[in-house]
Amino acid sequence: MNIDMITASAERGAGQVRRTPLLNSPFIDDLAGRRVFVKAEALQHTGSFKYRGAWSALSALGHNALRAGVIAFSSGNHAQGIALAAKEHETTAVIVMPSDAPSLKIENTRALGAEVVLYDRAGEDRDEIGARLAKERGLTLVKPFDEPQVIAGQGTAGLEIAEQAAEFGVDAAEVLVCCGGGGLTSGIALALADRAPAMKVRPVEPVDFDDVTRSLASGQIERNEKTSGSLCDAIITPQPGQITFPLMQKLCGPGIVVPEEDCLRAMAVAFMRLKLVLEPGGAIAFAAALYHGDTLTSDPVIAVASGGNVDADIFRMALEKYGSDL
Amino acid sequence: MNIDMITASAERGAGQVRRTPLLNSPFIDDLAGRRVFVKAEALQHTGSFKYRGAWSALSALGHNALRAGVIAFSSGNHAQGIALAAKEHETTAVIVMPSDAPSLKIENTRALGAEVVLYDRAGEDRDEIGARLAKERGLTLVKPFDEPQVIAGQGTAGLEIAEQAAEFGVDAAEVLVCCGGGGLTSGIALALADRAPAMKVRPVEPVDFDDVTRSLASGQIERNEKTSGSLCDAIITPQPGQITFPLMQKLCGPGIVVPEEDCLRAMAVAFMRLKLVLEPGGAIAFAAALYHGDTLTSDPVIAVASGGNVDADIFRMALEKYGSDL
Repeated sequence: MNIDMITASAERGAGQVRRTPLLNSPFIDDLAGRRVFVKAEALQHTGSFKYRGAWSALSALGHNALRAGVIAFSSGNHAQGIALAAKEHETTAVIVMPSDAPSLKIENTRALGAEVVLYDRAGEDRDEIGARLAKERGLTLVKPFDEPQVIAGQGTAGLEIAEQAAEFGVDAAEVLVCCGGGGLTSGIALALADRAPAMKVRPVEPVDFDDVTRSLASGQIERNEKTSGSLCDAIITPQPGQITFPLMQKLCGPGIVVPEEDCLRAMAVAFMRLKLVLEPGGAIAFAAALYHGDTLTSDPVIAVASGGNVDADIFRMALEKYGSDL
Repeated sequence: MNIDMITASAERGAGQVRRTPLLNSPFIDDLAGRRVFVKAEALQHTGSFKYRGAWSALSALGHNALRAGVIAFSSGNHAQGIALAAKEHETTAVIVMPSDAPSLKIENTRALGAEVVLYDRAGEDRDEIGARLAKERGLTLVKPFDEPQVIAGQGTAGLEIAEQAAEFGVDAAEVLVCCGGGGLTSGIALALADRAPAMKVRPVEPVDFDDVTRSLASGQIERNEKTSGSLCDAIITPQPGQITFPLMQKLCGPGIVVPEEDCLRAMAVAFMRLKLVLEPGGAIAFAAALYHGDTLTSDPVIAVASGGNVDADIFRMALEKYGSDL
């Protein structure tokens, strides 16, 4: 993994991957007690950064592999990214999804033309299912994070952050990134190490799913005890990746662990002050910027708002609980 | 009014006015039955396009006028735009607002440092109140739409639409614009007449507040009978302006009239498919693209999503009614 893979991915994705804006608001700065910039990656195609990695992986395949089709396993956002990228590359996608994924994500994946195979998150191993189907049908498996071309694609968000922050005169900041398996986190960290070396990435995770934070602290890969039961469904993974963890270990500052409830509050703030729809997992880095300032050392901070694929009833709950506080 | 005023405004606003993205989604194209692009102006500073005109007007003032301060009358979005632009120009703003404006808009305007003076929309004349306060305190009145530098500022959105559409290979399209007094509509029409002459602006208004549509049809300025009582509070004005009407008459196609309920449905679609928060009036052009295709003649169409300053309870209602339809 190196910066050249990220710039090559950016070139392949030019005109296709959306350049999402870097937003700010005086109201948010007041609330956080420091300047905050938000990379609005929920505005990416399919509603999350996962489209970057998906486009990157598909566009890097050779002709025959592309024609044969791809397979992916995902709680939803990677699924939608792969489904749309496959459609745009005029090939087929099979998506292995947990049966408890939000219905919206399952429906969207199907509507984008993919074949969805559901599995039980607690009792079955998605890697095994994915490998078996890939072999049976001659499909190329596109892993959600521990895959070099996917990491390179997520890293293109880091290239944009460096450029857009420079337009605001910012070259040094902590960059808070929602972290599941570490694909986005390590990709952005790689890009910034080259383009904005005074920036430092901090992974942000939900309480009870802080495998990366603990792994960075202990110096070895740690697993989560729980594998489901969080509103932040998009960023729940058993453990950091074999490729992503060494990158994060080399490049990232300590992790930050945030309660779910803070994600709901941050969703209401993003609604009110940025006009941006975020899902709980996609709001967690923004929540860290707003409510966990004691763990931060820089001013400004940059928070990556990584996705917005939330069912209407959960969004309504966030507004009902916190929409009138502001 | 001419294109040079718009390009000069764009130069004064460079690095200050946000370049908002032009968004699209395959789900929306399917729903509308044609390609749809959405100019996401709700992502502008203060949550609406009005900041463009406000910054334009303030930045065009001479030193003494700027120091003395400004006054504006507004149902809310112009108010917030003027308040922030005044703060950034280190001067004071007095804002005359109707007492039935959404509480969020009144609170935001105060929080941005402006002095708010409330009036009764049915019984008092806001122009008279504004003129009296301006005279008493030596303030410069910045009208919400019938003011050349404000129209020039709104027109900068048109410059961006021409450039961004060209990146998608689009140079001909109907451009649907949410229309109150006609500042945004005439500004965009002026910009496009120069930069993308194959595009045609269509003003979009709510049922019962279709003064521009009727004025364009009759060839003279027509008034609305009602002056309040719409969810689309941001685009309710008594009649088109003396400056904006002749521009719209020369440059625009026929108006489109849309029921309020369609705006709520369009808000749910923008939530789900674009991750964008829109207010009812800010969603009306997008609603026309989605639900009034019979009145449109082009494919693609471009809809300007002009603002997102909506109270949480109204947004929740839109999601409750229409969030599960999609």
